[in-house]
Amino acid sequence: MPLGEFELIDRYFKPLAAPDGQLRDDVRVGIGDDGAVLRAPPDTELVVVLDTLVSGNHFLPDAAPRSIAHRALAVNLSDLAAMGAQPAWALLGLSLPEADDRFLTELAAGWRELAVRHEVSLVGGDTTRGPLCLTVQLTGFVPPGNALRRAGARPGDLLFVSGTVGDSAAGLAVLKSRLQAPETLARELVRRHEFPTPRVALGLALRGIASACIDVSDGLAADAARMASASGCGLTIDLDALPLSAALAGAASVDEAREYALRGGEDYELLFAVPDHRTAALTAAVAGLGDITCIGRLNATPGLRLRAPTRIWSADPGGWDHFR
Amino acid sequence: MPLGEFELIDRYFKPLAAPDGQLRDDVRVGIGDDGAVLRAPPDTELVVVLDTLVSGNHFLPDAAPRSIAHRALAVNLSDLAAMGAQPAWALLGLSLPEADDRFLTELAAGWRELAVRHEVSLVGGDTTRGPLCLTVQLTGFVPPGNALRRAGARPGDLLFVSGTVGDSAAGLAVLKSRLQAPETLARELVRRHEFPTPRVALGLALRGIASACIDVSDGLAADAARMASASGCGLTIDLDALPLSAALAGAASVDEAREYALRGGEDYELLFAVPDHRTAALTAAVAGLGDITCIGRLNATPGLRLRAPTRIWSADPGGWDHFR
Repeated sequence: MPLGEFELIDRYFKPLAAPDGQLRDDVRVGIGDDGAVLRAPPDTELVVVLDTLVSGNHFLPDAAPRSIAHRALAVNLSDLAAMGAQPAWALLGLSLPEADDRFLTELAAGWRELAVRHEVSLVGGDTTRGPLCLTVQLTGFVPPGNALRRAGARPGDLLFVSGTVGDSAAGLAVLKSRLQAPETLARELVRRHEFPTPRVALGLALRGIASACIDVSDGLAADAARMASASGCGLTIDLDALPLSAALAGAASVDEAREYALRGGEDYELLFAVPDHRTAALTAAVAGLGDITCIGRLNATPGLRLRAPTRIWSADPGGWDHFR
Repeated sequence: MPLGEFELIDRYFKPLAAPDGQLRDDVRVGIGDDGAVLRAPPDTELVVVLDTLVSGNHFLPDAAPRSIAHRALAVNLSDLAAMGAQPAWALLGLSLPEADDRFLTELAAGWRELAVRHEVSLVGGDTTRGPLCLTVQLTGFVPPGNALRRAGARPGDLLFVSGTVGDSAAGLAVLKSRLQAPETLARELVRRHEFPTPRVALGLALRGIASACIDVSDGLAADAARMASASGCGLTIDLDALPLSAALAGAASVDEAREYALRGGEDYELLFAVPDHRTAALTAAVAGLGDITCIGRLNATPGLRLRAPTRIWSADPGGWDHFR
């Protein structure tokens, strides 16, 4: 007998209300009523984000459900991270062709793993029949006036990126057989594509230090140009400084690797600006939170420039646009 | 040249941040950053809801975009109404096969019309290419402890429903050529299906009066049984008392009309329980908010019973389930 909508919610989604077994005490009413009732901490601002992932567009039609759920949650956590917000509550809109037990078990497992790490409670949503599509909405908290913004950087500010960039796009290229690489490297790149790490703790640490912040979703060059433009600045990126993983460096030529890094996107690293006088505070704040790399500077001349040891040139930021 | 994702957001969706030209002052950062930054009133609880509408499932593939947007927003406003919450902020996840100007203009117009009426600000979302699908998330406010719940009704409480029921299902039957009716009546039923009215003011008025509340989305019988069951009660519905519109009564036989009313769904009327001793308060509170009708009582015996003048019988609540 096929599972009904309500059994499906009971079996797979209600357990995600308390992914580590402990219900958040700010959830007054969770899954099962017409809406959830929530209590934010006093004197806080809310940060809300929502991202939709459609099969065949944001993930391959044969993608593992564990990765699909991880990515649907991760891209939203990454948006909260880019705002410097502490994640709290999630809603999930799930459209599914059929209620398949194995698929849903794996989907819930992928969600749970990441939700536990960030204490995110699933408080409601909607499950419906249709083409495979997930819309995740997250709410997080930030002290009043402390949200990180895209606007706020000034000419002269240093430009930093967390982790390494280009791995996700290279991993997708491996999955699409557009990039050949030794198996260990290929596996690592694919893992970075399928299970990106949202930089939530880093986002929190950057409050009061970064003058602007954005996450790398559409491509480092495009996202950096977007942040600079929102701040009324231009920027110069040092090609030699781009942090490339050993896997990417081993799987692609330097030029290819830089192309993945600049245009690839879906790295979900944080890209942020820091004034010179706050670099000591930055170093202290990010200790233990993974590598960050200075890759250039904001400046007063609009537009994006790339710099190699022997030359500087203007570049088109490029980047992904769903309707071009 | 096709519209890009960002032009599309600028042209159609940014104006919905302030649908009546006035931006809510609780929106600190709206559309255009990685997330929106919002400030809830002090000492309030948040009510969050999310519903997904998929083409061919929740609306006909050739449905007018104005109606699609209206319904996507209305079903969520109705969920807030059922919780007794005051609507505030919206997020929209929109998956679209293509960026067609006429479609998007009409979609935005349908949204705006309803958003103005309820002072809902669109604060963000995601636009992506894919099968037509809308996920709307709304946040509303309710004084602490005052949210209406499905649980809370007691045996003996009176059961009320707002407006008239069955019109939406009959309107859908007209659209699918399963019901023939004189043109004026048919048009009225179709209008009720395409442009349902969420009972937001009624939901607010019922705080402190209704012991339980739910909106009629899956069918009056199913939703009433769900509310009774969440309250640990059963219920009896008087068939003679079901409020039927003149259009429905004119378009269908009495038995057909009651079938639409009981099993049809998508009326987005409020169904609520009120203890006898609060009926005077109820009458005062709902004055000017449209008709409400007492259609039965909650009782201690589990299950749904229907009552006609000469008999009472147990009935299967039925109702819509996306995975049966």
